[in-house]
Amino acid sequence: MFNIRTDLAIEAREIYREGSNREVPGVAVDVDHKDEDIKITIVKVLDERGARIIGKPIGSYITMEVPKIRHYDAEFHDRLGKSLAKQLAELINLKKDGTVLVVGLGNWNVTPDSLGPKVVSKLFVTRHLKQYMPQYLEEGINPVCAISPGVLGITGIETAEIIQGVVEKVKPDVVIAIDALSSRKMERVVTTIQIGNTGINPGSGVGNRRMELSERTLGIPVIAIGVPTVVDAATLANDTIDLMIDSLIKQTSNDKDFYNMLKNVNKDEKYALIRQILNPYIGDLMVTPKEIDSLIEDISKVIANAINIAVHPGIELEDINKYIH
Amino acid sequence: MFNIRTDLAIEAREIYREGSNREVPGVAVDVDHKDEDIKITIVKVLDERGARIIGKPIGSYITMEVPKIRHYDAEFHDRLGKSLAKQLAELINLKKDGTVLVVGLGNWNVTPDSLGPKVVSKLFVTRHLKQYMPQYLEEGINPVCAISPGVLGITGIETAEIIQGVVEKVKPDVVIAIDALSSRKMERVVTTIQIGNTGINPGSGVGNRRMELSERTLGIPVIAIGVPTVVDAATLANDTIDLMIDSLIKQTSNDKDFYNMLKNVNKDEKYALIRQILNPYIGDLMVTPKEIDSLIEDISKVIANAINIAVHPGIELEDINKYIH
Amino acid sequence: MFNIRTDLAIEAREIYREGSNREVPGVAVDVDHKDEDIKITIVKVLDERGARIIGKPIGSYITMEVPKIRHYDAEFHDRLGKSLAKQLAELINLKKDGTVLVVGLGNWNVTPDSLGPKVVSKLFVTRHLKQYMPQYLEEGINPVCAISPGVLGITGIETAEIIQGVVEKVKPDVVIAIDALSSRKMERVVTTIQIGNTGINPGSGVGNRRMELSERTLGIPVIAIGVPTVVDAATLANDTIDLMIDSLIKQTSNDKDFYNMLKNVNKDEKYALIRQILNPYIGDLMVTPKEIDSLIEDISKVIANAINIAVHPGIELEDINKYIH
Amino acid sequence: MFNIRTDLAIEAREIYREGSNREVPGVAVDVDHKDEDIKITIVKVLDERGARIIGKPIGSYITMEVPKIRHYDAEFHDRLGKSLAKQLAELINLKKDGTVLVVGLGNWNVTPDSLGPKVVSKLFVTRHLKQYMPQYLEEGINPVCAISPGVLGITGIETAEIIQGVVEKVKPDVVIAIDALSSRKMERVVTTIQIGNTGINPGSGVGNRRMELSERTLGIPVIAIGVPTVVDAATLANDTIDLMIDSLIKQTSNDKDFYNMLKNVNKDEKYALIRQILNPYIGDLMVTPKEIDSLIEDISKVIANAINIAVHPGIELEDINKYIH
Repeated sequence: MFNIRTDLAIEAREIYREGSNREVPGVAVDVDHKDEDIKITIVKVLDERGARIIGKPIGSYITMEVPKIRHYDAEFHDRLGKSLAKQLAELINLKKDGTVLVVGLGNWNVTPDSLGPKVVSKLFVTRHLKQYMPQYLEEGINPVCAISPGVLGITGIETAEIIQGVVEKVKPDVVIAIDALSSRKMERVVTTIQIGNTGINPGSGVGNRRMELSERTLGIPVIAIGVPTVVDAATLANDTIDLMIDSLIKQTSNDKDFYNMLKNVNKDEKYALIRQILNPYIGDLMVTPKEIDSLIEDISKVIANAINIAVHPGIELEDINKYIH
Repeated sequence: MFNIRTDLAIEAREIYREGSNREVPGVAVDVDHKDEDIKITIVKVLDERGARIIGKPIGSYITMEVPKIRHYDAEFHDRLGKSLAKQLAELINLKKDGTVLVVGLGNWNVTPDSLGPKVVSKLFVTRHLKQYMPQYLEEGINPVCAISPGVLGITGIETAEIIQGVVEKVKPDVVIAIDALSSRKMERVVTTIQIGNTGINPGSGVGNRRMELSERTLGIPVIAIGVPTVVDAATLANDTIDLMIDSLIKQTSNDKDFYNMLKNVNKDEKYALIRQILNPYIGDLMVTPKEIDSLIEDISKVIANAINIAVHPGIELEDINKYIH
Repeated sequence: MFNIRTDLAIEAREIYREGSNREVPGVAVDVDHKDEDIKITIVKVLDERGARIIGKPIGSYITMEVPKIRHYDAEFHDRLGKSLAKQLAELINLKKDGTVLVVGLGNWNVTPDSLGPKVVSKLFVTRHLKQYMPQYLEEGINPVCAISPGVLGITGIETAEIIQGVVEKVKPDVVIAIDALSSRKMERVVTTIQIGNTGINPGSGVGNRRMELSERTLGIPVIAIGVPTVVDAATLANDTIDLMIDSLIKQTSNDKDFYNMLKNVNKDEKYALIRQILNPYIGDLMVTPKEIDSLIEDISKVIANAINIAVHPGIELEDINKYIH
Repeated sequence: MFNIRTDLAIEAREIYREGSNREVPGVAVDVDHKDEDIKITIVKVLDERGARIIGKPIGSYITMEVPKIRHYDAEFHDRLGKSLAKQLAELINLKKDGTVLVVGLGNWNVTPDSLGPKVVSKLFVTRHLKQYMPQYLEEGINPVCAISPGVLGITGIETAEIIQGVVEKVKPDVVIAIDALSSRKMERVVTTIQIGNTGINPGSGVGNRRMELSERTLGIPVIAIGVPTVVDAATLANDTIDLMIDSLIKQTSNDKDFYNMLKNVNKDEKYALIRQILNPYIGDLMVTPKEIDSLIEDISKVIANAINIAVHPGIELEDINKYIH
């Protein structure tokens, strides 16, 4: 049976299509490329069959592919922030004066895992202002609060337990959870943003963040925003080997036996073999761009601004700088 | 009426005694100076009268004065850690297999307010290990978990709300809360550790951490550990002026009128006047040692080690390094 | 004899004028307030007499007072950056293809002293690009290099020795040195930028950065950019006492003797007395705004951008983001 | 012709021996394994032939392999520090009152490249104390100074130019240069320390630190201390492929043609092919352990302590904590 292990719906779809040369059954896909620097792919998982293949619950997964983000350009970052805000606002569909709880998942001490806490630190948090000094806030500012709960290894508490406790006290209308993902393709790292309306599900992500954050467990919608910040070492090795085999096949096209042998190396078997070979190291190693610090800084600002605009209909990107630092 | 505004029980007592030349009524005091580098003063607030004067609830406040801590000395830090652990263990009085929740209050982005989160980051956290791999843990290791909830300005949520939510999920037997305090004396900064069994009370501390963390609000004992990391600007000015007046009095002893005038400057009026004069700046300025970064680093390690020993009867300071980093 | 101890020419002038009610002899002053948010005062020290009173060598000292900078506003920061760039460009007067060496003085581990290294980290450094890949650089880009030498306590080497060594190798046409200053007025902290064409002089600044960085010692012009990031504790106490005396005088206007006594407290004696009283603490304490981290971050970005524009005539502020991060 | 590209003499030797099944000609090797946790291999390159094969100048390269360092243990760190100090002291052979300049190479903003600056920040720097207050220093304390010059991309100045400039001013008797290396084996990362007496040579290291730091260019001996903190992505892929081929060969032992084909994949061609395939990513990606932050912190402390003991014969490891922080 087919079983694709990736954090990104778009990758799961690609892998299926490569293997089968057809669209995933039970899945509808829509691509928007009006802005040539921002490719938006909406993958709708429609039924259980689609869910099983994609490895994610029934729901919507919007992926923005923005390779340009890795070359710093303030104007493009603003444009991307607005585009992301538009997608977010539609998915969140927040009622007037609805309360938002933003959850920054991940470990602030490990750079590639610090995306969530970094976004939280850049938000325009207003819930306390609404409570204690509402007169200072304009129309169209919703109560927003935020927490970076830490990871299991640091707190000894499942992230989901902390969030459940906070949700019961704060009673938000929606949770937005931000998380660092891993990708199977090197070129996706810090260039792809996935937002989905089915929360954070067990097994997703690289770290130890067991248990689900979802409408099922929290009783309110959970919007997830994820960005791949690492590729795993097995992926890197695997991709290289595939490229090598392609290259070797070209060189030895007259050697039928060998060609067939290579052809018959089953992709999943190969990946499993690589994982097994790398096993002693795999828990330990991460593959990440050299400038990961500044890349995380940039994309966390884009995401924070997008959330700020999406959840406060009364303010524009241009106003944000007057409110927050 | 007498009203002393300080985070430290020992300072409140000093101020009362300076004004009245007698011990605070409703308060019992015990001093232990067996280790000449560690002066331990135990202030027991016995009744409401004492509580009103000291400005703290009925309970025990143990103060360790350790000026030597500011000159780094690994051997002394170990000795201090053990001494603090002994005091803590007595106050906590943890039952076998009792669960401990450590709360690191304060803002990790403002160095003098980052004590709590720093201590949390150095703890030997075990609750998840007890749950998922108890076979790896020795006898005498209790389940310990920890959280740094952030401050109201960053989360939009009262710290007490977050902690209540987490306590309801985790159901610990005791909470240990660590907080940075302000002192009225420059020489106390990062040289005094106060532990108390009455929790964190409204109005204490410098930051925006309203609402109480106490047995009354959480249903379980709350041990507070506090260290002064700043003096407020009004205190600095006030102390200087007192010293100046003393100095001027000496120089002008024959000028009776002036002498009397200065004598009659009411201490509290004077402090109020200074606060009023400094008001436009006071919310803004902090007075702190230049090497505050490394001082916080050192004392947070001492406190973390002391908690590690106090809550895990099965391990010694020497073992700690094998478990945590 | 009059001797004013402050890093800021504008403060030295104020103190003199308060004491004497007239302009400093040997000094010409020009004020530009066309932009109501940016007050520019140009103090020209014309002769030795002026130099003795101001406590700085003959030369030009341009002070920009920008209280608005403490409330983050991206548009204002850009405007300020351009205004500062204009002043800088005039003072530097760089020849075509002239090489610039920027020196970030101060200690990166002590937040209020980290201004210089922070600015250096945000510069568009080009000298190596001019050498190794000139074809990629547009017209109007000068060779710029930069160093943060550290402080004496960390390196064991006088900063001036390091800079002399580097200047002899790099042979720049001008040095721009950035340094954190201390102010005697709380409201100046991180709201005042001073640029001067006489370098960094012995005794200026709070830290241990002895020996001069100037045309005299380096053989090339040295432009200094300084921002007060702390007030010293004695200043804070002194200012408070002055305000108190004013307040007391109002209350006791009929008491002639006392009034006169207070009047006769010599300002400098008083300051000296305060320094003596605070002596055990003074080397140790700093008074700084709570949000010093983000304030330093903001102003270092403004200064870095201003230098980037001032030294590269071929680029505009809008281009900078395309080159650097 | 054989050409081994690695920072570590010990790896170059291994690769040669794997290819040729004999010791490198022109090289003498001595192994000391008295301490079972610290394996010391001394590779002496004796002539030009050895130098060509090893890819390093004639001289001594001492490698300490200490896999245990990755599990924090204060007692072992002390033992390792003393062992490293012993090797260093012999290699440095410092004359009485000889001046030492320690150079921390690398970029403090990129964690795996920050080893050098981290070590420098933990040194007991004394040159200025010897100059300004010699009475406070005991017998057996040599003048030590230190600098972290930054990297070419940040300064625009070749590191070697800066160091030459500083050496001309300070006139030290010896330079100790600390640098992060890359390894071809995953298990070497942060577990191997190499010290050598031939300085830092062009092409070594991953970063942009061109030009040589050596006795030839500085006129004084240059001791280099290096630790691998990354493996390059090509190495990771290459190692995996080798393991895969071994595994495939076992499975297909009866298929003679294929077996021979795989056998004939030339190792260097294969590595070159992988580098070519990965080329678009290779400048960009690094492979590093997840806990690189704390691993660098630990090993930089070990190295700093070792230098402190090696260059100050008058003090013991136990004294170090009394002097520095």
